[in-house]
Amino acid sequence: MNDETAIHLRLGEIGLGNYAPYLMNRIMGRYNAALRAEMAELGLTTPKMRALAVLSVVEGPLIRELSVYTVVEASTLSRALDQLRADGLVRREVDASDSRAVRVFISDAGRATFETLWPHMAAGQARMFRGIPEAERQAFVGTLQKMLANIRRHDI
Amino acid sequence: MNDETAIHLRLGEIGLGNYAPYLMNRIMGRYNAALRAEMAELGLTTPKMRALAVLSVVEGPLIRELSVYTVVEASTLSRALDQLRADGLVRREVDASDSRAVRVFISDAGRATFETLWPHMAAGQARMFRGIPEAERQAFVGTLQKMLANIRRHDI
Repeated sequence: MNDETAIHLRLGEIGLGNYAPYLMNRIMGRYNAALRAEMAELGLTTPKMRALAVLSVVEGPLIRELSVYTVVEASTLSRALDQLRADGLVRREVDASDSRAVRVFISDAGRATFETLWPHMAAGQARMFRGIPEAERQAFVGTLQKMLANIRRHDI
Repeated sequence: MNDETAIHLRLGEIGLGNYAPYLMNRIMGRYNAALRAEMAELGLTTPKMRALAVLSVVEGPLIRELSVYTVVEASTLSRALDQLRADGLVRREVDASDSRAVRVFISDAGRATFETLWPHMAAGQARMFRGIPEAERQAFVGTLQKMLANIRRHDI
């Protein structure tokens, strides 16, 4: 079946259980809800958790870049960053080449907090992939990377 | 790498771009945002769109089942259903065997409305999978089905 045929199939023909966006929303809804509940017990929100996770591996992104990485809307992210900053978990720096641009960095305390979050994220991922062989997992991630390249609007 | 090893890898070792939940949140964030904007132009919301989509292929689910299928929280879904009912797009029926349980059905007008939405959903899916061969797409959906079976909390 080529793309032209696929786009003309109806949902009843594809079937809900074969429709990738449906499956992905179901899976991520469950993954995100489980993590949200676990983060709430640690006194954190999803935007804060995601900001710390991204900042643990991406050095000093601009706030608008962090918004893309975290898939958190800019105003929600700003509030989360204000709180993380008040708690000493991140710091802001004006960009060296553009005084209107602000970069965000994780602090040592932020890294220590992220270390307590990561096991929950890793366990959530492990639950998803339970019983799925490593080769299949790798092929799956390879397809996801192509899909993100297809639909992202930013270079990151 | 087996599951035990995988769970002990750190995010910096996996890399954000190889971490499946990150990729899936990015992809679905973009897919859902694009559809949300297109639905707004048609005067619809994401919960209404999803309810019509599911009801077009699932016959008379209970409201709590529809909440699972649509990944929309029960109170938000109830408001969406009230509006769809006011517009004559769905109807409610008390379950034959349990007078406290309510089933929701799509009307002919609802089906006609869904027919106008579906091309947007299908195009969103086609954008995601652009350039990805059919065999890879099928393998990807097969992995998604295993993942949903791993993490869902309901039979549906």
